Amino acid sequence: MKLVTYRDGAVAEGRLGAVLDGLVIDVEFLGDAVGTALPSDMLTLIDLGPDALSAIHRALAETEGARPPGIAVPEENVRLLAPIPRPRKNIFGIGLNYVEHVAESAKSLDTSKDLPKQPVVFSKPPTSVIATGEPIQHNASMTQMLDWEVELAVIIGKRATRISKDDAMSHVFGYSVINDVSARDNRRAGQWIFSKGQDSYCPFGPAIVTADDVADPHDLTLWLKKNGEEKQRSNTKHLLFDIPTLISDISSGITLEPGDIIATGTPSGVGAGRDPQEWMWPGDVIECGVDGIGVLRNPVVKIGD
Amino acid sequence: MKLVTYRDGAVAEGRLGAVLDGLVIDVEFLGDAVGTALPSDMLTLIDLGPDALSAIHRALAETEGARPPGIAVPEENVRLLAPIPRPRKNIFGIGLNYVEHVAESAKSLDTSKDLPKQPVVFSKPPTSVIATGEPIQHNASMTQMLDWEVELAVIIGKRATRISKDDAMSHVFGYSVINDVSARDNRRAGQWIFSKGQDSYCPFGPAIVTADDVADPHDLTLWLKKNGEEKQRSNTKHLLFDIPTLISDISSGITLEPGDIIATGTPSGVGAGRDPQEWMWPGDVIECGVDGIGVLRNPVVKIGD
Repeated sequence: MKLVTYRDGAVAEGRLGAVLDGLVIDVEFLGDAVGTALPSDMLTLIDLGPDALSAIHRALAETEGARPPGIAVPEENVRLLAPIPRPRKNIFGIGLNYVEHVAESAKSLDTSKDLPKQPVVFSKPPTSVIATGEPIQHNASMTQMLDWEVELAVIIGKRATRISKDDAMSHVFGYSVINDVSARDNRRAGQWIFSKGQDSYCPFGPAIVTADDVADPHDLTLWLKKNGEEKQRSNTKHLLFDIPTLISDISSGITLEPGDIIATGTPSGVGAGRDPQEWMWPGDVIECGVDGIGVLRNPVVKIGD
Repeated sequence: MKLVTYRDGAVAEGRLGAVLDGLVIDVEFLGDAVGTALPSDMLTLIDLGPDALSAIHRALAETEGARPPGIAVPEENVRLLAPIPRPRKNIFGIGLNYVEHVAESAKSLDTSKDLPKQPVVFSKPPTSVIATGEPIQHNASMTQMLDWEVELAVIIGKRATRISKDDAMSHVFGYSVINDVSARDNRRAGQWIFSKGQDSYCPFGPAIVTADDVADPHDLTLWLKKNGEEKQRSNTKHLLFDIPTLISDISSGITLEPGDIIATGTPSGVGAGRDPQEWMWPGDVIECGVDGIGVLRNPVVKIGD
């Protein structure tokens, strides 16, 4: 199922919608129509677990061919928020997780040319999250090296610590897309949160596709275009540490919770690794796609003096 | 005012209390007694802003000498939670922010001997927070180098971006104590979140002392004892980047919000910097104090096989 958080005129925090046949169907209103309590926001749905998702499937089946009036809006008419507009903690980011990106980073940044032996984990605060369509902020007084990174995002569905690799995939609620925006000249003694965690540096969405609808998350094509020109193209089969390894590794010390987000790392083709180097500037439009999940499209906009 | 979050038998998430004359006075019940709506939890109080704090002051003054029955418990009888039991995002940590700690780190870890030119920012997830009295987890299959770091914590009171140094102190709600526990052998390609962000690695509390009750936050003695033996002692006047600089710097790119927590860095005397090196082991008891704020006391407990 493809799920979104959309803005319904009056409700600033957004409402949960299921996308079907070009329509965004309001999940809570769908529930009202069939006499089942269904959640109105994404985090509540994730907290409720698989039964709630099954209840949405049943309600959609029950109303197929005769949707009740007033519960659906054509997809092109809604304004999307990030699927989880306000995560409950920082997003987990994974660095250096595609072999060719490790190589380009070692040439252009100060990272090692050796493949990491364990996942390289950092974080991006909830305040960095923006939706598709919202502007990536370019503050020239802060950075002259604003870079892009398309990534597959994994959304955790269950609270657990020390998850085994064998069990890890059962902890995934679904998948989305993140642009791990990075100001390469804002790193601090090697720590990445400031360079990657600034306001608007985490475009996220447009949707979450639930795990049952993704045949193989380790065979998804991902790509990025700047102003229509392709800059990155790879496939999640090239992940150095795959999804079970990431979940097992992070949870070996850090409890994972429903609604946690893991951005799994970017393939080669970032601006820093190009010859000559390229950066994002006001007026640019960045599109990030993961085939089967969706396309995130964000303009770059000047802020500050 | 000294504020705590305490567990009242039935309420798992804790309730807001003001500490006065050895009593924890329930803030919401105090409000009921004087006919004023007062909040029942710390984050709501911080969100409400200075007027809510003034209302508590007035209610305490109004009932002085004749506290209504049933609103206060002797301090030694309550179980404290962390003052903010569940922060809304990762805690901001500051690395290498006391000159002598920069020197000891350069000798014993892989950090630079040069003083950082800008604050070194990292983060600890909300799942790492524990209260005074709760166990620091020692998992021998993960670490043989579990270290301590006493720090002054700053609690932000207002939402803002690009805060000037001149205005920064007006954004502080109050102060607390954090033990920035670190598994020195769990760093990942230089990133610190995994080594510093594991479950229980952020003892926090015991209280928040509001900014109006701290005469000079840049003249506070801080110290740490392991099993009663002093390991760290310094003063916040030795901070390399002071509190206005930290607030101004982080907010130059990252919006700060009410309830955000900044752990301002540790002085010298950590286990990694000692000769011979020392670590925390199951059975140890760690006390972290900031004079005028409080003492955080946590046992180290074995987990795992």
